[in-house]
Amino acid sequence: MTNEQSRPLAWVAVDWGSSNLRAWGMDQQGNVIAQSSSDKGMLSLKPDEYEAELLHLISPWLPASSRVEVMVCGMAGARQGWQEAAYLPVPTPLGQLSQGAVMPTLTGSQLRVYLLPGLSQTRSDSRHFDVMRGEETQLAGLVADTPEFSGLVCLPGTHSKWATLDSGAITQFTTYLTGELYQLLATQSVLKHSIGSDALNDSACRAAFIDAVSEVNAAPETFSSRLFGLRAQDLLDSELPVGKTRGAVLAARLSGLAIGLELSGACQSRPSDEPITLIGNQALCQRYTMALNAIGYQTHYLDGDTAVLAGLKLAHQALPH
Amino acid sequence: MTNEQSRPLAWVAVDWGSSNLRAWGMDQQGNVIAQSSSDKGMLSLKPDEYEAELLHLISPWLPASSRVEVMVCGMAGARQGWQEAAYLPVPTPLGQLSQGAVMPTLTGSQLRVYLLPGLSQTRSDSRHFDVMRGEETQLAGLVADTPEFSGLVCLPGTHSKWATLDSGAITQFTTYLTGELYQLLATQSVLKHSIGSDALNDSACRAAFIDAVSEVNAAPETFSSRLFGLRAQDLLDSELPVGKTRGAVLAARLSGLAIGLELSGACQSRPSDEPITLIGNQALCQRYTMALNAIGYQTHYLDGDTAVLAGLKLAHQALPH
Repeated sequence: MTNEQSRPLAWVAVDWGSSNLRAWGMDQQGNVIAQSSSDKGMLSLKPDEYEAELLHLISPWLPASSRVEVMVCGMAGARQGWQEAAYLPVPTPLGQLSQGAVMPTLTGSQLRVYLLPGLSQTRSDSRHFDVMRGEETQLAGLVADTPEFSGLVCLPGTHSKWATLDSGAITQFTTYLTGELYQLLATQSVLKHSIGSDALNDSACRAAFIDAVSEVNAAPETFSSRLFGLRAQDLLDSELPVGKTRGAVLAARLSGLAIGLELSGACQSRPSDEPITLIGNQALCQRYTMALNAIGYQTHYLDGDTAVLAGLKLAHQALPH
Repeated sequence: MTNEQSRPLAWVAVDWGSSNLRAWGMDQQGNVIAQSSSDKGMLSLKPDEYEAELLHLISPWLPASSRVEVMVCGMAGARQGWQEAAYLPVPTPLGQLSQGAVMPTLTGSQLRVYLLPGLSQTRSDSRHFDVMRGEETQLAGLVADTPEFSGLVCLPGTHSKWATLDSGAITQFTTYLTGELYQLLATQSVLKHSIGSDALNDSACRAAFIDAVSEVNAAPETFSSRLFGLRAQDLLDSELPVGKTRGAVLAARLSGLAIGLELSGACQSRPSDEPITLIGNQALCQRYTMALNAIGYQTHYLDGDTAVLAGLKLAHQALPH
């Protein structure tokens, strides 16, 4: 916990995910003056435990009396979270997320908590069923900076999200199970005997990653056979390095297969002269940049924490005060 | 254990897999006169335990003195099995598997055990690294019946194998991780909350299965997003049935996505007027027939047990006697 509180606290920003919770104390100008975090995510809390956990983190920052607004995004607003903030359907202007916020009843009176909604997409001609909860606030952070933003945005992760933005509104989005597929295959499948640590920290690993991305992007129908091919390669390929590098090369290849499958779906028939905006942690976004560059796309990068804070700030400004 | 031993035992056929073991007592004419099985597969045995386990199953059948040959296919011949029978490289005539058999040293002198080899494929222009161990004997069973067989054969399962046969020789094969992908996704991923029992036993399930096969076969790049789409559909789709049928429909859809991905790779640019031969258990082969018919292919069916017995018999006949 840090607290550089020379300036007075104006409001609190919270990103409350499935497995952790991060809170930032904000001043009137939108600067961070304190921050704290815990591992009490949605999966480890009952509805009546959220208020105490929040107070545990932020009470050192609170002024003696005046009321403080708390903007919360993420899984705290899920049905199985603190209280459900129902999904807003796309298309949704990203500056209007706070219109779908719900206010849970609190035992104390100092806080006024707003749980922001996620977004949903139901089936229509060009769309399929999909949901997001948390990423919409990062997308709002992009729009906070560029209100009329239009373009394709990727938020890589366990469940990677690709969103199409048009003049600051999200019109369509698609979730890929990439990170989860990688984890399951690397740790639970027949491949677990072959897969080592995945860091892309030497040239052999980077080459294996890029090759795999390119192969599956060009021929996504080969994804499943290339998975088993990793195991067979480990058994048969006399050119594979030995020792730790062997497992690292095969891990890089598995990561490339999983990301290549995502890109083949997400970039299909996209003109390659439109750069793709990546939002997320730096290492993962660098990996996606390598992959996207390899198949002919340029990228822009926006840090995930910067984006979520900017999105929460935009939502806070949009509250009726 | 059954034993209808009015006729004398001539030899013993054994299919020794990762998780179980099946043995058949054969007479001189190639008829099954006894059979037995156990759950002592390769994964639960050390090398020096195989002989005792085999004797435990077949000693009631053995004559008082004369030597008995035992033909074994499957994982008992893997490096981590009884003793390694090194992979034969493709192309390999399927009538010649016994040329790669190894004979483990035994403590007793009545048995003469032959462990059949698997097949391997190393990278070349049109091929990739791949291995099989067990399925080659089922393919030999097909060739036993039709020595000059040419065509495409599918052995569905945890790791589905697709083999191209040319005049009784296997020239190329590809493994798809289909069954394992299904299991991991159904039981370990975010989808586990949505997936029920998968039996395709009503028309809604069969329709969901067929639709999913067709969608992914036509657009394999959508596989990963359609996976997450199952979860979103469970959250959002008001037209989904409730109760047990809901989970069954979503399970059918997941099965269709996994099999559709396999078919998109295996059938690509195959002329649809060549029937595909399916070898395996009846229920699974019926499911693959539904899937293949939906995308325009006809199938032939050969029972998996019949095939493995015929293959072991072919290998036994080919031993120098």
